[in-house]
Amino acid sequence: MSKMLVKNIGMLATPKGTGVKRGAAQGEIEVLRGAWVLIEDGVIAAVGTQTPPAAPEIVDAGGKLVTPGLVDAHTHLIFGGWRQNELGLKLHGASYLDIQNAGGGIQSTTNATRAATEGELAAKAAKALDEMLRFGTTTCEAKSGYGLATEHELKALRVIRELDECHPIDLVATFMGAHLVPAEYKHDRAEYVRLVCEEMIPLVHEQGIAQFCDVFCEADTFTVEESRAILEAGLKYGLRPKIHADEIEAIGGSVLAGELHAISAEHLIVCPPEGIESMAKGGVIACLLPATSFNLGAVFAPARDMVNAGVPVAMATDFNPGSCPCLNMQFVINLGCLKYKLTPEEVLTAVTLNAAAAIDLADKVGSVEPGKLGDLVVWDAPDLDYICYRVGSNLAETVIKRGRVV
Amino acid sequence: MSKMLVKNIGMLATPKGTGVKRGAAQGEIEVLRGAWVLIEDGVIAAVGTQTPPAAPEIVDAGGKLVTPGLVDAHTHLIFGGWRQNELGLKLHGASYLDIQNAGGGIQSTTNATRAATEGELAAKAAKALDEMLRFGTTTCEAKSGYGLATEHELKALRVIRELDECHPIDLVATFMGAHLVPAEYKHDRAEYVRLVCEEMIPLVHEQGIAQFCDVFCEADTFTVEESRAILEAGLKYGLRPKIHADEIEAIGGSVLAGELHAISAEHLIVCPPEGIESMAKGGVIACLLPATSFNLGAVFAPARDMVNAGVPVAMATDFNPGSCPCLNMQFVINLGCLKYKLTPEEVLTAVTLNAAAAIDLADKVGSVEPGKLGDLVVWDAPDLDYICYRVGSNLAETVIKRGRVV
Repeated sequence: MSKMLVKNIGMLATPKGTGVKRGAAQGEIEVLRGAWVLIEDGVIAAVGTQTPPAAPEIVDAGGKLVTPGLVDAHTHLIFGGWRQNELGLKLHGASYLDIQNAGGGIQSTTNATRAATEGELAAKAAKALDEMLRFGTTTCEAKSGYGLATEHELKALRVIRELDECHPIDLVATFMGAHLVPAEYKHDRAEYVRLVCEEMIPLVHEQGIAQFCDVFCEADTFTVEESRAILEAGLKYGLRPKIHADEIEAIGGSVLAGELHAISAEHLIVCPPEGIESMAKGGVIACLLPATSFNLGAVFAPARDMVNAGVPVAMATDFNPGSCPCLNMQFVINLGCLKYKLTPEEVLTAVTLNAAAAIDLADKVGSVEPGKLGDLVVWDAPDLDYICYRVGSNLAETVIKRGRVV
Repeated sequence: MSKMLVKNIGMLATPKGTGVKRGAAQGEIEVLRGAWVLIEDGVIAAVGTQTPPAAPEIVDAGGKLVTPGLVDAHTHLIFGGWRQNELGLKLHGASYLDIQNAGGGIQSTTNATRAATEGELAAKAAKALDEMLRFGTTTCEAKSGYGLATEHELKALRVIRELDECHPIDLVATFMGAHLVPAEYKHDRAEYVRLVCEEMIPLVHEQGIAQFCDVFCEADTFTVEESRAILEAGLKYGLRPKIHADEIEAIGGSVLAGELHAISAEHLIVCPPEGIESMAKGGVIACLLPATSFNLGAVFAPARDMVNAGVPVAMATDFNPGSCPCLNMQFVINLGCLKYKLTPEEVLTAVTLNAAAAIDLADKVGSVEPGKLGDLVVWDAPDLDYICYRVGSNLAETVIKRGRVV
């Protein structure tokens, strides 16, 4: 049996709630001073503040802050290419159309993703995961959604499975064939929706390579009725619904999320009161993506209204090559305080236990409690406020995944 | 003679202009593909694109982007303590007065700075410099200004000198006794101004430990006339003027900057047209601090108007424990594009050659040209757009300072 003791913890800050399936009360965290955590065979065995037990492997936290490993509950990890030149073009005055005509836009990511081999996609994503781990992320959701054709969607999901097996970060996979309607179906949207529902979803189910089904419900992508059809098809095959809703225009995605009891709704930048109400009723977790608002120069989601309405709030990076080329959960933490005006305690809940609940892993990760995985971050910080306050530094000093320093 | 060859540079991007004392044309950069740089005894000896010369030490840039080392032209590097708990307090609803009453605010930094020894201040600042270096900063300005008493201002400046001698980053020192009126002079402002002008400045001159004199010209700190008196006293003793102007309210600081031919004016968030005009006439460099606007949730300085008026724009971090606990110039680069809407080329000028000019080092650093210091960054990036676009990652792969990998 492997045993690791993390001792001399100045401040242990963690939400509590093993088994909280639908998210924990925002900001209700436990703070222990002078604590230790014992990890056995990768699982937390005990937490205490008295004399610590002996263990062959010791991590001395040096009186610093320790939190659960961060959970990034929304990423588009698998993609070919980058789109940095669109930023340059825009700043030089190019219009959206100019960029499309120059071969840019999301379709260019689809083209690059289709052209890439599994090995190429895996190598590129592994590099991103390495960096995420250094910034303190120990669990990560990843979506397909740039393949937009059966073989390429399945390819992306296989890459996620491979990465889950070989990378220290634990991954969960979301099928998102309904990310947008690819160019070749522009004039036959219904046929693409049929393809997603009747071909892709059954195959995803058959291969057992995704847990969730996500859809981009927005004026330019999938209507509420198309989204409903896709998510219901997913449900029929055991894929729990997630939904990109109210990112640019509130067309009803968050209301639909509540009706379908989606596990989470994502973005919610312009979420209307009826959407919040529906999510509260439906037990939906709001998965907010503040780095996307930052990158787009958009407003920030009404996080406080959601908390007030009893909707559990999670926060994630939305890492993708278009609207958010950011994989750093520490920046998300900063934005949670500076832009959503959540308290440090509420932010901690959002990036740990509620993020875990948003990907159905609240029984395994997201808090420092016996029975959970031994996923911890020792921060170069004296307290929780500090990691919210310091912008632009990597404060993750030691990252521990399943009881192993990584 | 030590010789280093940096070869296989995919894109070498640099402003040009050794000897440009008052800043270079924004965005006029040179881009070389397939380039090499030869550094001899810490100084750039040659730049080329043909067959590279031989050298005992080789850095293979792997086809990636190389730029000049970044110049951070505005930091409050020397301070005791941090103020992270004020963020927590504010988010829990505390008012500015509550925080003052809880012993917070800038005066708490002054108290901690006064209480710290030179060794303590140096160790704390050295840790920050180590991190700045890892993010690509190779030259840095540092201000006194939290001592606010003769012995403590001189102490801070001595720390800067020591750090310049022992740390790879080159530092230049700015005396800023006029950062605010300390508590003990609240009822005799004139006496504090007299102390700065007649005691501190002559001693700073005598000890030769600062090149610049800065003043915080703002409604709550020093009036335009007090600022003028302080900067003129500095000039009499050979300290070139800098001025914190128009950060919160435009009371005339930027106009004064032009009248005094200050080397730079800082912040300029609410700079009015007459301030821009005065700076253009007076040959003043605008040193903009976008991470401070970000942290404060304030608007962003009218950078485009300044560029249009021919005012050279530099950008810096403003690293300090109150309004901007960020030391990462890469985040400043991101904000230059996302918030100021400067092009990547304009941003590069702002964080290299114009930043160097803002601290009178344009003849030594800020561009990759023969005769300049061998300060380079090899980026994990294929081109300049990429470092503007990727938010939240440390893309500095290899940092070279005076011809040495650091």
